Amino acid sequence: MAVSDLDRLILLLAKLPGLGPRSARRAALQLIKRREALLEPLAAALAAAAQNVRVCSICGNLDTIDPCGICADPRRDRALLCVVEDVADVWALERSGAYRGLYHVLGGTLSALDGRGPEELRIAPLIARAGAGGIAEVILATSATVEGQTTAHYIADRLAGLAPSVTRLAHGVPVGGELDYLDDGTLSTALKARRAVR
Amino acid sequence: MAVSDLDRLILLLAKLPGLGPRSARRAALQLIKRREALLEPLAAALAAAAQNVRVCSICGNLDTIDPCGICADPRRDRALLCVVEDVADVWALERSGAYRGLYHVLGGTLSALDGRGPEELRIAPLIARAGAGGIAEVILATSATVEGQTTAHYIADRLAGLAPSVTRLAHGVPVGGELDYLDDGTLSTALKARRAVR
Repeated sequence: MAVSDLDRLILLLAKLPGLGPRSARRAALQLIKRREALLEPLAAALAAAAQNVRVCSICGNLDTIDPCGICADPRRDRALLCVVEDVADVWALERSGAYRGLYHVLGGTLSALDGRGPEELRIAPLIARAGAGGIAEVILATSATVEGQTTAHYIADRLAGLAPSVTRLAHGVPVGGELDYLDDGTLSTALKARRAVR
Repeated sequence: MAVSDLDRLILLLAKLPGLGPRSARRAALQLIKRREALLEPLAAALAAAAQNVRVCSICGNLDTIDPCGICADPRRDRALLCVVEDVADVWALERSGAYRGLYHVLGGTLSALDGRGPEELRIAPLIARAGAGGIAEVILATSATVEGQTTAHYIADRLAGLAPSVTRLAHGVPVGGELDYLDDGTLSTALKARRAVR
């Protein structure tokens, strides 16, 4: 079968995270079958995203405007700055609805293995933002992995004297989590960080 | 966040089979980050597929030409006709490399529950192809489900007197399958259909 257009579509779909060769084939068939409801809108949405979505020059978030909607929102608390690894983390925190400050997207973690040093991340712009004043608290919300925590430590050191308060997210038992299924590290952290009930 | 272009892209990606809301977000981020390597080629491939891929008027397969590459291939055995439910089944049989005849895509199975009768499937064109002569064997390769087998029985009845031979795929132990994990139906079918070793 010399279905070059179809084959190319399947190959590209298979590169998306979460889609293997088999589900890419199913997705391509679905797209062709639902041409007007799915294929054409998706092609248009991709073209619109390619044209309009850009990186916010202040925080590194993705948006169709620069500065992004969060940086430009006058209702956000400008004294709070939350440092995250990736744009996906901004979205996760926004979905939680629990945070009303600003963000700073690093673009990854420090990694000796992958050869990612501080220059590869957006750390210098973060120091500059903190140094410009007006920020009361920097929340380090990197992942609870070795690399995420190394990055958080490095940034905390660099922020010394620049931000009145530097905090990190609490570690402990996830809401809905059963003790029996938790790893030892989480359990001992949760025990050490126990809080008085009354 | 009023990221309308991004949100629309995520909503559409989430409609693809195999992608939920979470993986659609990851896929959208990946697309934006790899604009030149992934997003733009995918948009182009979708546009090309929308413009060029069509349903073969003979067999119902999808291709950029009509009749499709298989129907037009002079090396295929025109006396063999394999009846399948879906275009994905054509692809699966082609990948196996074990079949050199022509296909007929039904577009689904008969289903009393979903209200799909013979008119909803490409059964009339199949009868017409068989009635036109030149076909020695019709292979019914519908799924081994109740609906697939009902459809196969219905088609076998309709083909009476039109095709010299009507066959179906063998049922039995899948290659690589362990007896212990097989359902009773497959096991008893495989036992009944046992073949002499020598």
